[in-house]
Amino acid sequence: MQESAELQPTDQREEKRRRILRAAIDEFARKGYFSARMADVAKSAAVADGTLYLYFEGKEHLLVSVFDDVLSRAIDRARTEIAGVASPLERLRIVVRLHLETLAADRSLAHVIQIETRHSRRFMNLITRGRLGEYLELLRSLIAEGQEAGEIRRDVSPGFATNVVFGAVDEIVNSWLLADDPGDLTRFHAPLMDFLSAGMVEHRS
Amino acid sequence: MQESAELQPTDQREEKRRRILRAAIDEFARKGYFSARMADVAKSAAVADGTLYLYFEGKEHLLVSVFDDVLSRAIDRARTEIAGVASPLERLRIVVRLHLETLAADRSLAHVIQIETRHSRRFMNLITRGRLGEYLELLRSLIAEGQEAGEIRRDVSPGFATNVVFGAVDEIVNSWLLADDPGDLTRFHAPLMDFLSAGMVEHRS
Repeated sequence: MQESAELQPTDQREEKRRRILRAAIDEFARKGYFSARMADVAKSAAVADGTLYLYFEGKEHLLVSVFDDVLSRAIDRARTEIAGVASPLERLRIVVRLHLETLAADRSLAHVIQIETRHSRRFMNLITRGRLGEYLELLRSLIAEGQEAGEIRRDVSPGFATNVVFGAVDEIVNSWLLADDPGDLTRFHAPLMDFLSAGMVEHRS
Repeated sequence: MQESAELQPTDQREEKRRRILRAAIDEFARKGYFSARMADVAKSAAVADGTLYLYFEGKEHLLVSVFDDVLSRAIDRARTEIAGVASPLERLRIVVRLHLETLAADRSLAHVIQIETRHSRRFMNLITRGRLGEYLELLRSLIAEGQEAGEIRRDVSPGFATNVVFGAVDEIVNSWLLADDPGDLTRFHAPLMDFLSAGMVEHRS
């Protein structure tokens, strides 16, 4: 008999929802989004097929939910950690560190975020209008504040600078993800922030 | 009756091959790689279905070929244009300009390169081991030469710096590709190279 999600206590429902999201990350990373089947996710999460559909409408909803869940928690954590920090450049440094730490801790998640969620223009538009847009807006606002505070150069638009920073972080993650012997992703944090801050031209002393 | 590719003069075969690659770019951009059908590509290229398979084994071979063809020509063009230029940093600037110009001139191609060729980890590994790897190696060698020439700071590895530069360029292209009102992609060339060269920290004067 199919369970009813509504009749369960909230924390029990949330626990089951989290278990399904975890199973989805593992299945999407293992088989790829297109090959993974909802039945595999249900089995891996130890729930009935029908139960899965009480929580998620279908595979695309599940992929969007994985993405939004990770980004929501990353954004919340970033806002908490930068709350007491005055310098916008230092806050940007903290957000980039959290970005790398989150993906460093979970290669399956990194695979899903970096590859499976970018499979089509339609899906990229979908996530950009959602939580990814919110995350990029957080980066953009820190850069704009850094410009106002005189820490960051003002001759580029904050949106442009956001693309450069996000693109650099994103490619560092991709390169780590595809490497045969990747090592610890977070070792790139200091050189990355230094490179972006000071540029690549040899210092003229 | 099916044509034989081998019996045609070389330039006629090459013309037909190019026509098929062009049709594939347009179909993949219009429908997405997964939804596009080989029959649609054949129709759009005005060749028989059987003829298409004389040139390409299947849809994946066609997508790899689109990617490799574009990258091969971009690498050849880059090598020609930088041949007489002494400064490695200036050569890097030229290669990035060609990168942006190539995609600026053809949004369908940009869509296929930025999105459709990144649909799975397996496919990303495939292109990274091929022409994309060759392109990244070109960037890496220019950065290493710039370090030897004292133009580029030596405290980061050339591979790391390549990831930062490529990631920044790549995200500028993605942002342009997904924008509702994208404008001319090449307008980002000067600010991008300046930002990467001099960094984002406010100049201390």
